[in-house]
Amino acid sequence: MSSRTSVRISTLAIFGVGLIGGSLALALKQAGYVGKVIGVGRSRTNLERALRVGAIDEIQSDPRQAVAEAEVIVLATPVHTIRQLLKTVSACMDETKIITDVGSVKGGIVEAARHALGPCFTGFVPGHPIAGKEKSGINAASAELFENHRVVLTPVRETSPEACRTIRRMWTATGGEVNVMGVEDHDRVLSLTSHLPHVLAYVMMDFLSISPDRQECYRMAAGGLYDFTRTASSDPEMWRDICLMNKPQLLEHIARYQQHLDRLAGMIDQDNGNGIGEMYASAKQARSRITEKRKTPSG
Amino acid sequence: MSSRTSVRISTLAIFGVGLIGGSLALALKQAGYVGKVIGVGRSRTNLERALRVGAIDEIQSDPRQAVAEAEVIVLATPVHTIRQLLKTVSACMDETKIITDVGSVKGGIVEAARHALGPCFTGFVPGHPIAGKEKSGINAASAELFENHRVVLTPVRETSPEACRTIRRMWTATGGEVNVMGVEDHDRVLSLTSHLPHVLAYVMMDFLSISPDRQECYRMAAGGLYDFTRTASSDPEMWRDICLMNKPQLLEHIARYQQHLDRLAGMIDQDNGNGIGEMYASAKQARSRITEKRKTPSG
Repeated sequence: MSSRTSVRISTLAIFGVGLIGGSLALALKQAGYVGKVIGVGRSRTNLERALRVGAIDEIQSDPRQAVAEAEVIVLATPVHTIRQLLKTVSACMDETKIITDVGSVKGGIVEAARHALGPCFTGFVPGHPIAGKEKSGINAASAELFENHRVVLTPVRETSPEACRTIRRMWTATGGEVNVMGVEDHDRVLSLTSHLPHVLAYVMMDFLSISPDRQECYRMAAGGLYDFTRTASSDPEMWRDICLMNKPQLLEHIARYQQHLDRLAGMIDQDNGNGIGEMYASAKQARSRITEKRKTPSG
Repeated sequence: MSSRTSVRISTLAIFGVGLIGGSLALALKQAGYVGKVIGVGRSRTNLERALRVGAIDEIQSDPRQAVAEAEVIVLATPVHTIRQLLKTVSACMDETKIITDVGSVKGGIVEAARHALGPCFTGFVPGHPIAGKEKSGINAASAELFENHRVVLTPVRETSPEACRTIRRMWTATGGEVNVMGVEDHDRVLSLTSHLPHVLAYVMMDFLSISPDRQECYRMAAGGLYDFTRTASSDPEMWRDICLMNKPQLLEHIARYQQHLDRLAGMIDQDNGNGIGEMYASAKQARSRITEKRKTPSG
């Protein structure tokens, strides 16, 4: 956790004070990095809870008022709401303000922002903290969520370097490690490391849920099923939106994954023990590289 | 952990004193359930280590001598060695002895035992403790490995009820919970809960390992990839053998999994948000049933 720094953002508005938005607020408060935090969202209960735990200082029901007062605006609502939200906030944006998001897919959001913000698009810094848990809401939030986790920023040609620096420093204050990537690179890599695994886990549970053996299967989950399907506890709507938004990358990766699975099935069918052993040994070796490079367990 | 009970097995021979065989020995020793444990295996180093940590009392290089002395024989070597091992031990089997195994696939092993043991097949109790970790060898073994874990026995029509009772009590003494299932039921259920998840994780890593984005992917694994592919750290040879031995069940399940994945890909392609959301919500609900029923985390 970064030590207390002087306040760098006097007024921050967070749209969506859930797991990510709430944790960001808590982290920045704990670091003494932010002055006033204004929370905006759909659930009054969640916002009141956020107020009680000190994540936010004020609940604002008028989004445009929140934007008008803030120096930095964070959009942390579900990705399918971002397009509309950008239109709503654009009316009060000006070139002194910085706006950023935390969405798991960058391409669609960048295009929506380019379209909605006009000349203020230069103040938009696309972002994505690679952190999270299956739980949601301010109750799940914690000031430590981003510590030692990667936070990807995907500025484009038009993005103001100063805006980008501000958002980079904001995330660094939470303990996150900022990496800059291209929009398409981000969407392709995250499709592989996050979207595809979620899809495959959801499909596994969907497949099991209609099996006549499902009750037995639920009882025998300690053989591997438990960890493999952890991500299938994630929010269905959020992941529906991610899949639709990252459609081209994901469909490509699903198709190529299936080719590899077909190849393995063929080797099993032909009793090709050598081929299978080689594939598994190579996979194990690749997996050891993840374990080495990983900093902390994902939440 | 079961409290100390009186010694029920005076002499136990364990073939393969690795993670499973070694943990079984340690658990029975700790429970005071077994008198002398004889260890047989390929690696002198591993056996000497097993002796040092008190898992076994004696190393025996002659398998037939080990069988001749023992009251109960446990085959805990890799599944592809079991067929040969059964032939070796059959020469010294008699109808007073009980022999059991711990293999992850029952069908092939039961057939091999029926063929190799002749009239002594009635003393063979097919078994499979649903426990384990990616690590192997006596170094990874622990007396607590089976606590609150299910141990499946798949006796067949010819199996002596008394032999089955002896093996049931043996596993209960380790803290495991014994469940009896049919051979085919076991292989079908474990294909779903264990073999298929391992296959899908291995294929994911194999797929990634040849991707131009792999270095980036290894760095971005906190998004879900890490847990999803944990099982790809498992022993490649062991899993090659399991896949080949459980071929019909596994190929059937891979094919049906592929159908479900195709269906999802189709829904993404057609922007069918409702269909995707429903599938994911149903999957999440099914996954919650695993979390409820699971007793302890798998190793």
